[in-house]
Amino acid sequence: MFTHNKALQFETNPAAPDAAFARRLQEVLGGKWGEMTVAMQYLYQGWNCRLPGKYKDMLLAIGTEELSHVEIITTMIGKLLDKAPLSPDEADGTNEKSAAFGGSNPQHTIVNGGGASPQDSNGVPWSGAFVTSSGNLMADFYLNATAEMQGRLQVSRLFHMTDDKGVKDMIRMLVTRDHMHQMQWLAAIEELKADGLDGLPVPEAFPLEEEFDEFSHTFIHASDGAKAVDGRWASGPAPDGRGDFTSALIQAHGQEPELAPGDPRLYGTSVLEETEGLIAKAKDALK
Amino acid sequence: MFTHNKALQFETNPAAPDAAFARRLQEVLGGKWGEMTVAMQYLYQGWNCRLPGKYKDMLLAIGTEELSHVEIITTMIGKLLDKAPLSPDEADGTNEKSAAFGGSNPQHTIVNGGGASPQDSNGVPWSGAFVTSSGNLMADFYLNATAEMQGRLQVSRLFHMTDDKGVKDMIRMLVTRDHMHQMQWLAAIEELKADGLDGLPVPEAFPLEEEFDEFSHTFIHASDGAKAVDGRWASGPAPDGRGDFTSALIQAHGQEPELAPGDPRLYGTSVLEETEGLIAKAKDALK
Amino acid sequence: MFTHNKALQFETNPAAPDAAFARRLQEVLGGKWGEMTVAMQYLYQGWNCRLPGKYKDMLLAIGTEELSHVEIITTMIGKLLDKAPLSPDEADGTNEKSAAFGGSNPQHTIVNGGGASPQDSNGVPWSGAFVTSSGNLMADFYLNATAEMQGRLQVSRLFHMTDDKGVKDMIRMLVTRDHMHQMQWLAAIEELKADGLDGLPVPEAFPLEEEFDEFSHTFIHASDGAKAVDGRWASGPAPDGRGDFTSALIQAHGQEPELAPGDPRLYGTSVLEETEGLIAKAKDALK
Amino acid sequence: MFTHNKALQFETNPAAPDAAFARRLQEVLGGKWGEMTVAMQYLYQGWNCRLPGKYKDMLLAIGTEELSHVEIITTMIGKLLDKAPLSPDEADGTNEKSAAFGGSNPQHTIVNGGGASPQDSNGVPWSGAFVTSSGNLMADFYLNATAEMQGRLQVSRLFHMTDDKGVKDMIRMLVTRDHMHQMQWLAAIEELKADGLDGLPVPEAFPLEEEFDEFSHTFIHASDGAKAVDGRWASGPAPDGRGDFTSALIQAHGQEPELAPGDPRLYGTSVLEETEGLIAKAKDALK
Amino acid sequence: MFTHNKALQFETNPAAPDAAFARRLQEVLGGKWGEMTVAMQYLYQGWNCRLPGKYKDMLLAIGTEELSHVEIITTMIGKLLDKAPLSPDEADGTNEKSAAFGGSNPQHTIVNGGGASPQDSNGVPWSGAFVTSSGNLMADFYLNATAEMQGRLQVSRLFHMTDDKGVKDMIRMLVTRDHMHQMQWLAAIEELKADGLDGLPVPEAFPLEEEFDEFSHTFIHASDGAKAVDGRWASGPAPDGRGDFTSALIQAHGQEPELAPGDPRLYGTSVLEETEGLIAKAKDALK
Amino acid sequence: MFTHNKALQFETNPAAPDAAFARRLQEVLGGKWGEMTVAMQYLYQGWNCRLPGKYKDMLLAIGTEELSHVEIITTMIGKLLDKAPLSPDEADGTNEKSAAFGGSNPQHTIVNGGGASPQDSNGVPWSGAFVTSSGNLMADFYLNATAEMQGRLQVSRLFHMTDDKGVKDMIRMLVTRDHMHQMQWLAAIEELKADGLDGLPVPEAFPLEEEFDEFSHTFIHASDGAKAVDGRWASGPAPDGRGDFTSALIQAHGQEPELAPGDPRLYGTSVLEETEGLIAKAKDALK
Repeated sequence: MFTHNKALQFETNPAAPDAAFARRLQEVLGGKWGEMTVAMQYLYQGWNCRLPGKYKDMLLAIGTEELSHVEIITTMIGKLLDKAPLSPDEADGTNEKSAAFGGSNPQHTIVNGGGASPQDSNGVPWSGAFVTSSGNLMADFYLNATAEMQGRLQVSRLFHMTDDKGVKDMIRMLVTRDHMHQMQWLAAIEELKADGLDGLPVPEAFPLEEEFDEFSHTFIHASDGAKAVDGRWASGPAPDGRGDFTSALIQAHGQEPELAPGDPRLYGTSVLEETEGLIAKAKDALK
Repeated sequence: MFTHNKALQFETNPAAPDAAFARRLQEVLGGKWGEMTVAMQYLYQGWNCRLPGKYKDMLLAIGTEELSHVEIITTMIGKLLDKAPLSPDEADGTNEKSAAFGGSNPQHTIVNGGGASPQDSNGVPWSGAFVTSSGNLMADFYLNATAEMQGRLQVSRLFHMTDDKGVKDMIRMLVTRDHMHQMQWLAAIEELKADGLDGLPVPEAFPLEEEFDEFSHTFIHASDGAKAVDGRWASGPAPDGRGDFTSALIQAHGQEPELAPGDPRLYGTSVLEETEGLIAKAKDALK
Repeated sequence: MFTHNKALQFETNPAAPDAAFARRLQEVLGGKWGEMTVAMQYLYQGWNCRLPGKYKDMLLAIGTEELSHVEIITTMIGKLLDKAPLSPDEADGTNEKSAAFGGSNPQHTIVNGGGASPQDSNGVPWSGAFVTSSGNLMADFYLNATAEMQGRLQVSRLFHMTDDKGVKDMIRMLVTRDHMHQMQWLAAIEELKADGLDGLPVPEAFPLEEEFDEFSHTFIHASDGAKAVDGRWASGPAPDGRGDFTSALIQAHGQEPELAPGDPRLYGTSVLEETEGLIAKAKDALK
Repeated sequence: MFTHNKALQFETNPAAPDAAFARRLQEVLGGKWGEMTVAMQYLYQGWNCRLPGKYKDMLLAIGTEELSHVEIITTMIGKLLDKAPLSPDEADGTNEKSAAFGGSNPQHTIVNGGGASPQDSNGVPWSGAFVTSSGNLMADFYLNATAEMQGRLQVSRLFHMTDDKGVKDMIRMLVTRDHMHQMQWLAAIEELKADGLDGLPVPEAFPLEEEFDEFSHTFIHASDGAKAVDGRWASGPAPDGRGDFTSALIQAHGQEPELAPGDPRLYGTSVLEETEGLIAKAKDALK
Repeated sequence: MFTHNKALQFETNPAAPDAAFARRLQEVLGGKWGEMTVAMQYLYQGWNCRLPGKYKDMLLAIGTEELSHVEIITTMIGKLLDKAPLSPDEADGTNEKSAAFGGSNPQHTIVNGGGASPQDSNGVPWSGAFVTSSGNLMADFYLNATAEMQGRLQVSRLFHMTDDKGVKDMIRMLVTRDHMHQMQWLAAIEELKADGLDGLPVPEAFPLEEEFDEFSHTFIHASDGAKAVDGRWASGPAPDGRGDFTSALIQAHGQEPELAPGDPRLYGTSVLEETEGLIAKAKDALK
Repeated sequence: MFTHNKALQFETNPAAPDAAFARRLQEVLGGKWGEMTVAMQYLYQGWNCRLPGKYKDMLLAIGTEELSHVEIITTMIGKLLDKAPLSPDEADGTNEKSAAFGGSNPQHTIVNGGGASPQDSNGVPWSGAFVTSSGNLMADFYLNATAEMQGRLQVSRLFHMTDDKGVKDMIRMLVTRDHMHQMQWLAAIEELKADGLDGLPVPEAFPLEEEFDEFSHTFIHASDGAKAVDGRWASGPAPDGRGDFTSALIQAHGQEPELAPGDPRLYGTSVLEETEGLIAKAKDALK
């Protein structure tokens, strides 16, 4: 159950409108790695978590914090859109002004009337497919760490796309929380291991005797880049402690596959029999 | 540049048709974490990689191998679809047969004529948005490790959804390669650190002095689950070696935000001025 | 800023698993008119609202409540998925059991490991395009009333798709809240009018003198269904108090349009000039 | 059954090309609230309507008219795209010209060769998910009224994004028809009530004794905005005539939910039993 | 401008409900190659056509006919959905009945109340991206011929998925129109050539001297399937009358590409310079 | 099974950065008719092909070549993005520079760090729905010919959107391969006919006696464009050799359809019976 406070978790004000930056900010709001994604992902993982206790509690806490970040960014986008020019004619001042008009999102004015929307920096709507909640915390926590890295990478880049101190301060706050959240997920991964809840390879519970050993530690080389085997992934001990890496050129463990001719009622192109063609076969099937 | 051999990297044959399992196999072919995703993700990361050498070579090698896995699974789906019933009437035998018809994908017969398609187990098309290629190898390699974990998790589950030895053998091969690839990405992450190419927090090159220290190591508690602070993410040294974790209840560092009334030509609902309403303002703007 | 309590706003328990109903419940969780949509829609409208006071406060309050409904439904889906059969073979008992397997969502087990996901009852991901936040409260409140009507309609239908008392009780709670929320938005529409913030036609501020009067109150008949003009929309006073409805058959106020031949560098098919064909023109353009 | 006349329902000509405005016009052609949506929505509602007579006839009439609006806008977009610059170099004239190039849609030239496409102003394709046809006319007519409000709002905004008289005249026609259509749907809602076909809350036929009375008229306050209860939605008689509004702070009617550990073959993270870990359990399941 | 007649272009009645077939019929209504696609594709091509006369007139005529087919199929789906069971319990009769429930579309009842929707047989919404209107009639007419082939193929398959005479008769009508429409587009392609409007390769107007001759008639062999060169595409005269086909193994006309290190403010992984690492470079950039 | 060589199939270098052209190039990489589509389409057709021999071998060969084109274009996009300005301020030089900034793709810098992505020129992700693999080679080869025509058309247009010789040379190579591939598919269509594998109308195996003859050769005129019957599609012999084309005005072969009132538990609006309304009926159903 959620409650809301009108005060923002963090707030700054832009010095001037910038519709092009408002468009770009949408990436970290409603893009694949934006705040909508991490908020929903952590909450769904928390709700679906079948292990009561610290992990579930933590997921719900951080998911809730991310909702507050969604609020921070939508608010900033609204502020940046004030006084945006509505047409090329109105944007006809400096080159900077015309560049900003060209780089703005038409829906920000036409659809939202000067407000944010759950979409990315190209105007593609946020998708529920961005959320992963597998039920396996180890697999999901690695993804969560990644999400914070991609997120921090994107806000680090945005930091260089504006000179507005108010906007930069908001970005600095987001960069810093992404710093903390990277640390958090990496620590949680270690804790999962320490608690014996999972291990390598994930899921550890799948019995290794069902695997084919010849494929489990071999780097398969399918390109001619000779240096591909110069990394630690092609020799030396593997992180699972169950053997050493080796490498081999890709090779076939099968032949050219044979597919049966298929049901003639599906009218696919397939093998002609000797004395009758496909047409006759299909007609027979129809009788 | 690519070349192709008709022999499969791995091949087995199913003992009997199973259209419901053919539908389920689509998840690891064209779902978010399926072979289409990892093939394209590793190749795009390789093509976009601005660092020549072992990492780029390795990305192109593994991306190419994953293309061969796409081929393995599409072939198996085609085999599983042979002799699938075309209607409830044809499926009117055992309960198992009617369950399989109900659980099948109509497009497998209507659209593909007994073949696979780049879509997930619900028939939702594969999306280019599943591919992440950020230009930052550390962020991307964490995602790649995750992808192999989610992928191995899914094929581990599929292992229990069939009794067909031929199908299970193909799954065992995929489980095993996902095992190897998890190891590979974890080793590559270590190598990136050892080579000094990036570190924590990712991207390490963003200057920490631009961060707000009060936010960089604090677990913020926004839910009432008391155990959320019992994990390593809320106390003790952080993985970046730059301080200890602390925790705090979420609090506001801002106030209720104020948005300007907005351009009257956008007809948003906003503050009424004393002596004239919105209508008059908009009409003025039109003059 | 949001905070979360682990206790649910409302909770009941199902008597037995039902994977087909779990799939159907996804519609009111992640479908176009589900809880994800109303939660996000009301919150975005609140964040983008440029009029401080009761409307903005109310939007944020109800949006936050809807988040708690998302939590209620995800939890119920998790409970309904316990002990779901994993294959046609396991579903091979009664006809009811095979029907339920056929009607289940494969991703609930393969992807989510027995949990919910932000998608509809066909497995199509929730889309940010479902959210409308126009900045004009009158237009949006009509949509909000609609959303609660569509939502109540869907849960009313779901009420008849299960006999499980625990599940029905949850649905009764949702039906009732949709009842209240319909009332709420209809009352808010009246309040907006009473406060003079907008009126008919929405947006009232657009000057009527810019309209073409011959089109503003005429029902245009473009089909041969004679009864189409028997309703109140084709005669009598219009709700805007600005005239009476009339009706007329559709007629052309234009001619067959003429498009210019277009830029030859775009290689479209267009008018041949007398002495030279398209090819020559294009080649000239290339010089 | 449909027939077509080549003359347009309404036609004007632009004075000059404007590729940025051509992109913006796509919003009211192929956006969520554009003409494609209302045409298809009214036609599907008409086709699916199980009540013969005036409502069904009217739906088919207006849906058909909207098809003629699709034709009007596609034609205008084609005209606006004539002589659009193909590159930054060609756009290198005034600031207005470079703004217009930046704000144009690349697909208008590359894909369509100077023509329109069923997509919104950001180039996102129109989606069948924009269409709602519930079978319940009351719920759908509220949506239809909304659609005309959102539509009129968007064309009102577009009116201020061009100075071209020919384009503005087309917009004035669209604004006016949206005016009429708002009136029409509001009148139709009243007629549905007068005919006793439905009432509040929608659907009225769902028996109120199945509702929980404590939830049916209570505004639940989940945010700290004190003014949220100052509106008519929190006190006084409700529009359904069945009681007065009250308000209350949100409270839990449930506890922290408990989910069962789940099927070990799905490899989710769940409770460890005392004497054996998850791994052993899963291995047992595999035997 | 369009007008509508309530009588259907073609009508039959099903003998019995079949919710699984209703789901399957959605493919030829709202799938990629369904009636929605051809209706909209031909109309957009007609509206965007810059060549007045027979081609434009024909496009508008056939696009309008396809709208009537959309109406035929939506009507049939509504009829097939009557009396569909709402739950596994209601479907608990014969195996055929449970198969049909499992194979039905949940949205047909929950969302549409027993009606059709613009989506495919898996419930994925129709997309504007299915429409191609390039402005070049030759390229588009080949696509149109294809669309009728794919469409006829799908309805031919559906013909074998039901025994209901009324349904089969509707399918026979659709099969026959697809027959006619294939003929129509193939004849129109010939007419375009005869009229000198375009030729091979499409677009013929692009000057062949800009091409690289060594690539224009060579089948490039990138797989080891030896028979790939046994077809007419690898030897003999090419259809453009401009030379003979040849074949060659794929070979590189380039080297391993070199990408510059990239802007350090984007934090990509790139070449380390000798005396300073990436971090220092990025910090410098921030000064 | 695939292998990869690091050398490109074709390589040129741009003289200068051009972020607007980099955005436009995305269309032929990840748009509906781009290289991603043809690569995947030909490979899926090859994998699903149930006829061993020259067609299957050829499909796999050309699909593999197209993968090499994906690589060529991604590489060029990376090169074009070097030194792209990050903000309107940095783009504040010439009008050309501001036009290019406005016309660039924000994700190229924020998300990809100066690299390509599987999406179109508006940033909409590539979709698996772009791939058609029907199992019927004749239907699919017509689509493949179309794909090469649409593709050649688009690169022909791109040829005029840049003056950079290196970029133009890459486009010339792509134009030429699309030339060859058009020839290839047209030759393959003839070969399919010569081999007796299919014929007109596709699929030829569907028995013509199941068709309604009155619909098989008649151009149906549903628009008032008189010239629509002036083409070869309305008179003279049809390409199937089975009769002459005729033409007729569209006419109804059905009546206004009647839909049954529907299940009252779905709460649709339907016929009122004499002595009781919908509400009473629904309540009865609930007892």
